[in-house]
Amino acid sequence: MVDNFFKKRKSIKQVEESTDLAPKFDENGLIPVITTDFRSGEVLMQGYMNNDAFAKTIALGEAIYYSRSRKSLWHKGKKSGFIQKIKEILIDDDQDCVWLKVEVIGGASCHVGYRSCFYRNIPFGKNIYKSKIILKFTEKEKVFDPKKIYKNALNPTKL
Amino acid sequence: MVDNFFKKRKSIKQVEESTDLAPKFDENGLIPVITTDFRSGEVLMQGYMNNDAFAKTIALGEAIYYSRSRKSLWHKGKKSGFIQKIKEILIDDDQDCVWLKVEVIGGASCHVGYRSCFYRNIPFGKNIYKSKIILKFTEKEKVFDPKKIYKNALNPTKL
Repeated sequence: MVDNFFKKRKSIKQVEESTDLAPKFDENGLIPVITTDFRSGEVLMQGYMNNDAFAKTIALGEAIYYSRSRKSLWHKGKKSGFIQKIKEILIDDDQDCVWLKVEVIGGASCHVGYRSCFYRNIPFGKNIYKSKIILKFTEKEKVFDPKKIYKNALNPTKL
Repeated sequence: MVDNFFKKRKSIKQVEESTDLAPKFDENGLIPVITTDFRSGEVLMQGYMNNDAFAKTIALGEAIYYSRSRKSLWHKGKKSGFIQKIKEILIDDDQDCVWLKVEVIGGASCHVGYRSCFYRNIPFGKNIYKSKIILKFTEKEKVFDPKKIYKNALNPTKL
């Protein structure tokens, strides 16, 4: 059990301009989290935390998310070994989003096996109307084989 | 009106490993968007898009979000002048999050006046239990004065 570090939200001035940590959890009790590699700045993944996951992340210094598919706390890397060591935690202006800068032990953050979850980009621009949108892979090789790491664990992706 | 670029979600293999763009919008019809500066890698803001905003962003090459407070499309920078020119659009493994790399005309992305919305960090670690959590400002000066730019517009922050 960890302390509750969070203040009540009292005013816009407090939320935006003060040193109070007063995060806003959504109607499901969650706050979105952006996780980047502290060296490269690359976005590795986007997840969610509930009150407990956020407090525990602050206390432990390792990323603990809330898994919406498993409906439970998710200490990232406990199964795969790819622990995310916190280097910095930031909060945004209205305190409804968290940014974690992390060092990933083992170098992978994506359950599909890539370094980052964002391994495909989307073509865009004025001439895109009539052409087909075809994603382009920006990572060529997987860092690990998910079948070996996760064995028979359920794939978290939902259709 | 723009084309609908999006495919139907058929299988986990299609979503994770193919070149189909088949995004997942949540129960409110929204997908979270992470926006970073294409040069520095800094996270500037986190927002949301609905189907229409996402398609228009792809077609226009400038960031168009869905404003949850105003309940309408939000062409970022139309009011403030701080347009976000798209440099790259990425999608994550299960296609429920978008990452935009942008160039910000004018250099600010935060309605409070800072360069990034993430201008405060949170102390963390093992000795944090008994101490008070006090946010630390990482940006010292505002890029612009919100009162001059937005005049009497409603502050989007909700308590």
